[in-house]
Amino acid sequence: MSAPKKVVLAYSGGLDTSIILKWLQTEYGCEVVTFTADLGQGEELEPARQKAEMMGVKEIYIEDLREEFVRDFVFPMFRANAVYEGLYLLGTSIARPLISKRLIEIAAETGADAVAHGATGKGNDQVRFELAAYALNPDIKVIAPWREWDLTSRTKLIDFAEKNQIPIAKDKRGEAPFSVDANLLHTSSEGKVLENPAEEAPDYVYQRTVHPEDAPNTPEYIEVTFEKGDAVAIDGQAMSPATILTRLNEMGGKHGIGRLDLVEGRFVGMKSRGIYETPGGTILLEAHRGIEQITLDRGAAHLKDELMPRYAELIYNGFWFSPEREMLQAAIDKSQEHVTGTVRLKLYKGSVRTVGRWSDHSLYSEEHVTFEDDAGAYDQKDAAGFIKLNALRLRLIAMRNRRLRG
Amino acid sequence: MSAPKKVVLAYSGGLDTSIILKWLQTEYGCEVVTFTADLGQGEELEPARQKAEMMGVKEIYIEDLREEFVRDFVFPMFRANAVYEGLYLLGTSIARPLISKRLIEIAAETGADAVAHGATGKGNDQVRFELAAYALNPDIKVIAPWREWDLTSRTKLIDFAEKNQIPIAKDKRGEAPFSVDANLLHTSSEGKVLENPAEEAPDYVYQRTVHPEDAPNTPEYIEVTFEKGDAVAIDGQAMSPATILTRLNEMGGKHGIGRLDLVEGRFVGMKSRGIYETPGGTILLEAHRGIEQITLDRGAAHLKDELMPRYAELIYNGFWFSPEREMLQAAIDKSQEHVTGTVRLKLYKGSVRTVGRWSDHSLYSEEHVTFEDDAGAYDQKDAAGFIKLNALRLRLIAMRNRRLRG
Amino acid sequence: MSAPKKVVLAYSGGLDTSIILKWLQTEYGCEVVTFTADLGQGEELEPARQKAEMMGVKEIYIEDLREEFVRDFVFPMFRANAVYEGLYLLGTSIARPLISKRLIEIAAETGADAVAHGATGKGNDQVRFELAAYALNPDIKVIAPWREWDLTSRTKLIDFAEKNQIPIAKDKRGEAPFSVDANLLHTSSEGKVLENPAEEAPDYVYQRTVHPEDAPNTPEYIEVTFEKGDAVAIDGQAMSPATILTRLNEMGGKHGIGRLDLVEGRFVGMKSRGIYETPGGTILLEAHRGIEQITLDRGAAHLKDELMPRYAELIYNGFWFSPEREMLQAAIDKSQEHVTGTVRLKLYKGSVRTVGRWSDHSLYSEEHVTFEDDAGAYDQKDAAGFIKLNALRLRLIAMRNRRLRG
Amino acid sequence: MSAPKKVVLAYSGGLDTSIILKWLQTEYGCEVVTFTADLGQGEELEPARQKAEMMGVKEIYIEDLREEFVRDFVFPMFRANAVYEGLYLLGTSIARPLISKRLIEIAAETGADAVAHGATGKGNDQVRFELAAYALNPDIKVIAPWREWDLTSRTKLIDFAEKNQIPIAKDKRGEAPFSVDANLLHTSSEGKVLENPAEEAPDYVYQRTVHPEDAPNTPEYIEVTFEKGDAVAIDGQAMSPATILTRLNEMGGKHGIGRLDLVEGRFVGMKSRGIYETPGGTILLEAHRGIEQITLDRGAAHLKDELMPRYAELIYNGFWFSPEREMLQAAIDKSQEHVTGTVRLKLYKGSVRTVGRWSDHSLYSEEHVTFEDDAGAYDQKDAAGFIKLNALRLRLIAMRNRRLRG
Repeated sequence: MSAPKKVVLAYSGGLDTSIILKWLQTEYGCEVVTFTADLGQGEELEPARQKAEMMGVKEIYIEDLREEFVRDFVFPMFRANAVYEGLYLLGTSIARPLISKRLIEIAAETGADAVAHGATGKGNDQVRFELAAYALNPDIKVIAPWREWDLTSRTKLIDFAEKNQIPIAKDKRGEAPFSVDANLLHTSSEGKVLENPAEEAPDYVYQRTVHPEDAPNTPEYIEVTFEKGDAVAIDGQAMSPATILTRLNEMGGKHGIGRLDLVEGRFVGMKSRGIYETPGGTILLEAHRGIEQITLDRGAAHLKDELMPRYAELIYNGFWFSPEREMLQAAIDKSQEHVTGTVRLKLYKGSVRTVGRWSDHSLYSEEHVTFEDDAGAYDQKDAAGFIKLNALRLRLIAMRNRRLRG
Repeated sequence: MSAPKKVVLAYSGGLDTSIILKWLQTEYGCEVVTFTADLGQGEELEPARQKAEMMGVKEIYIEDLREEFVRDFVFPMFRANAVYEGLYLLGTSIARPLISKRLIEIAAETGADAVAHGATGKGNDQVRFELAAYALNPDIKVIAPWREWDLTSRTKLIDFAEKNQIPIAKDKRGEAPFSVDANLLHTSSEGKVLENPAEEAPDYVYQRTVHPEDAPNTPEYIEVTFEKGDAVAIDGQAMSPATILTRLNEMGGKHGIGRLDLVEGRFVGMKSRGIYETPGGTILLEAHRGIEQITLDRGAAHLKDELMPRYAELIYNGFWFSPEREMLQAAIDKSQEHVTGTVRLKLYKGSVRTVGRWSDHSLYSEEHVTFEDDAGAYDQKDAAGFIKLNALRLRLIAMRNRRLRG
Repeated sequence: MSAPKKVVLAYSGGLDTSIILKWLQTEYGCEVVTFTADLGQGEELEPARQKAEMMGVKEIYIEDLREEFVRDFVFPMFRANAVYEGLYLLGTSIARPLISKRLIEIAAETGADAVAHGATGKGNDQVRFELAAYALNPDIKVIAPWREWDLTSRTKLIDFAEKNQIPIAKDKRGEAPFSVDANLLHTSSEGKVLENPAEEAPDYVYQRTVHPEDAPNTPEYIEVTFEKGDAVAIDGQAMSPATILTRLNEMGGKHGIGRLDLVEGRFVGMKSRGIYETPGGTILLEAHRGIEQITLDRGAAHLKDELMPRYAELIYNGFWFSPEREMLQAAIDKSQEHVTGTVRLKLYKGSVRTVGRWSDHSLYSEEHVTFEDDAGAYDQKDAAGFIKLNALRLRLIAMRNRRLRG
Repeated sequence: MSAPKKVVLAYSGGLDTSIILKWLQTEYGCEVVTFTADLGQGEELEPARQKAEMMGVKEIYIEDLREEFVRDFVFPMFRANAVYEGLYLLGTSIARPLISKRLIEIAAETGADAVAHGATGKGNDQVRFELAAYALNPDIKVIAPWREWDLTSRTKLIDFAEKNQIPIAKDKRGEAPFSVDANLLHTSSEGKVLENPAEEAPDYVYQRTVHPEDAPNTPEYIEVTFEKGDAVAIDGQAMSPATILTRLNEMGGKHGIGRLDLVEGRFVGMKSRGIYETPGGTILLEAHRGIEQITLDRGAAHLKDELMPRYAELIYNGFWFSPEREMLQAAIDKSQEHVTGTVRLKLYKGSVRTVGRWSDHSLYSEEHVTFEDDAGAYDQKDAAGFIKLNALRLRLIAMRNRRLRG
């Protein structure tokens, strides 16, 4: 790879990416463009501008991407009921392709030939950033300082910052007890005090949800309305995608919903332990399954369930911008045409459960299922033939086996 | 189908199957053998013997199948983390093949040419009973009185019972407000007051779990130990399969764990709404996923997740005794060779969560994943090549698309 | 089912459906509308009109559906490379939903409340006709005379025909040595002389392809051009879908291509043996795979291959008009956006093989793959990291296993 | 990676691996053990011994692995009907894990800490060698000279050979017009004159099969007998696995069977074009499908077809020694318990077709399928109920859609 001339950096404004910014300037002698996005991580963005300016950055991009994030990434993923390894709602995974997309777009706008990110060489995020970047610009250079530099200890990083007049917040001098990623969908914590998967995570790790024990003693009910698979209203009030997720986060957080302690298989090959908090997403998943129960045909629903693990794996591994993810998305979206209606949920001390659902698009037919007289809607005698022909191949096997036993 | 000469009836001792017993005797003039199994449904079996004797039955089989049920049916299914339509733990589905197996075996012992069951013509259970029966004896005759007779209302049933001196418990005269099935794995309730899926199920439907609101205010911890994918001990104490499930049921029931309100797609084509209580099974599923997290390789785990929906569908649809279920079981069992270790879980007001897991068979390598110095266990530079080659096909697509845009 | 008042009959004009026509008139005393379609079966349709008129039919539909058949059914299916049980090109299966679609449309136009078909009760076609019919009109009545009447032998059929002045061609008096179905995609033969799967099918069964031994001694080359997955030209000459398939049939037939002797698993449960001739379709499948080789990304191609068996099964089983088939179609169609280009094939004595392919949409990069100097397009050192990280989880397993061995 | 002390080299005796041998000795100053295997590639092995001795090698392993290759690798793979990307029989892929297995075993025997192979950095074989090696010994060092050295042109290689007294056969001085790999299952050719996928491969590329045009003008019949999915006899004569494949190769080669011109997606990301000749394997695949047609239940067969692409991909990508391949193998092997019987095939000018099959384990029931009177084996009226219940969910969808249209 030839040396980059101009780099767009995914810049949080924090210490680590500030060090990266400076390192890019000194190591490569190249111009740096910063890109700071509001994905709902709950941090002020303007300090990032000031720091970037202070370090001589001329092109500074600060953008609120929350609506795009939820509308074009989170919601399509929830149409699939995607969970990774049975449990993880993919909160970090789904944010990376959007950041890469903007990095590449900004590179085109500013004439940059490279992008840079602050993900380490051990994790999944480097893969997600870079696969997305390459898929959108095959010639882009990608710089991942954590894989390149020799700032391999906290001490060296702090030294570098001090030498380069990078301001260091007091609480950043020492090692953080664990590492955090956050956006509108979730907060994840991993590393350090969490590295022994046998030990329960300490209470202070959780940042976004109350402890179920501290949640209200009275259950709360909520109604979520869907149109074509996407949430569009809460308790009858229409809201934008990001507003809905924000509101669900508040309710979920209040009731201690969406905590997960998981050991997962990383794409790069090792297992890692993470603590995830996905309060709104956990409610949304339950609600989406609830509305699908009455609006989605069994054939479509089962096919979706079979495709889901692959779909989730693709997102986890960073293949959002791949033809196979798009194929699966086309199938999933096709299935959602009638996933429209309302679900009633009960929130209580760490759990959310569907307790009712209704829809003009419902496939549930009380007339057919009733224990009462169904007025001929369903002829029970049909079941005899249904069973006989489903059994035929099994009977032929049994006859064969009996014949062989002699 | 020629008339049966001798029928083995799956006999609960209750009013409905007593009516069936009598109806078989009168309608077909054939001898009836009764088979009553203890699958953990929590009812006395001896009254079934007395009633059968009273109706002139000469061959009466009453058996405790709880250990076989858990060991050979429930546990193999839980190795797969099987859930139907994302949520249902298949408590009813998994009991039917065992009952059919014994019906067919008893038919062989007693020289019967037919078996009979009390499932209706609208449900899945008829399919499950009969597919299993045909798979085990291709020439068996199956009698499903509910599809045949004209006792199509409660009044006619009661009339028939009275005319035939079948004792009727007082609370069986009227219509039950809903229908119940129970075994060691779960209790299901459906029909009548539950037929409107928009309305929350009334509290009195739940029979096996306390309301989460009434559960203890203090969380309880439990440790479940697995060997090759099966639970073998609780809190360090080795127990038989049925004993383990019984103990988990007690703990789950006490903490309000395992309630589910589901609208599901039946194999016979319509959707139905059920309320399921699976206290022990819900803990077991969480625990099994917990131990797999550290002992099961990612490749195996993801393949299992992809196969699971099909496996669950096969069990739900009644294909336990089918070559494709056995193929999937072979794959799943192969994966469980190292699923050995212990999981620590927290039970609290309706939820169960893994909080720790450890195992001699663990694949988790703190050495590899650590944020600290890993002493060369993992070379971060490898990630660059890994990403570049994973990206290559995406880059080739992007180049192609760019070339076409001109 | 209440008695039908007016029935639309899928009418070929042959003896069997003429008997059905009369039987419907006499058995149900209802008005019959006939529908005769040209799907490329190679028979005159006008005689059907005359016979229908002779039997008093007032509403006679005769339609050339060849273009619709190929464009909307055959081509979408070939986008998937669909083969059933590894070998069968689904020639009969794919024609049934189109016929049902027109039956239902004509029923709506003519105010008929029922449709009827001439498929037997043992085969797949009854299922395909009826599932499609019910999917398009949930209240339609379906009459399948072969499942209802007592004309259960050839003698009885001939008697009925004679009694009802139905003309009987001389060669139809006796039993045909096998049964045939034909359309533009294929000819299938089954039954009677073919019922012993151990015996080679006699030469006279083949009707549409020359014996490979009699095919030209000189290979012939052909070039098929695709756009978005569909064939659009042969040897550079643009043609309509039906024209292309017709032309491929001629060439395939001439070279003895597309013969298949198969024992397959029917949806109704038994195995049956069929002889299929699909000359043009066999060329088309090979050509489509050929163009996909250079235009379809590996991720998309492998996903397609995994979805294909299910897709083929759905079509075979009659679920063309089902949400899950439409979901799969959406995924497949999404993958075909760049499947554009030309394939060169060699036809010779029963086989067709791709020998070259080119496309503006090609993903093949000689620059990357070359054994020669690639000017840095590909850095072989990337492979080391790629392998190391792909191997990591396998190494962790090996370390675990070694640790356990002690 | 620290420097290796002793290396086991996969040594063919040819020029390239002789250069590698010397390079290892000079570059790493380490002892080299050579391993030369007869996998049926059709070359003398003793010259490899002489050359190795001449270069000072003290530990020389020369082994005939043909039976192990076919019995433990080829046959298990053929049980799955494995083809990669619809067409490729995986002839190269399946040989690599066996070679790696022996390399690792020999390393253990000889106290070597490294293995080396002659695969380039662009292909799949490096991945296959190394994944297998790491899976079997997580600490092994792997040396891939082609990714390391600077002998990047033919000239440099020849120079190195001359400087090091490595004998150079006359025909090896110039560039080969294409690259070849061969073993008992297949011969593959790629590169150089084959790099333009639009151009037909020249005749001289084919080495193992006659041109179909030159094959005998008379078809030949052959009968292959299987037991539990593996071929055990030809024309009634029992033979060992390698003998059977050898014999099938002779017959296939004589009739021009098993040629394939393919552009495939490599695991490392680019597409490449290969010419494959798999004469015996092509016959074996057709025969195996033929015997499965009558002995394998539809449920098992369809599941196998769905699993196969993944299974083939795993082998192609080098994951033979992975838990997920072993899981799939367990499922596939389970399905083969009754795949026993004989298939009759017709070989003629490039094609092989099943024309008959019979088995004591047959599931084909002429009694059920017959067009003649079936004596009640099958009740056609059962089909009505079968269809009605299969249609129910489609009807409910249609009712819903009609209701929504108003």
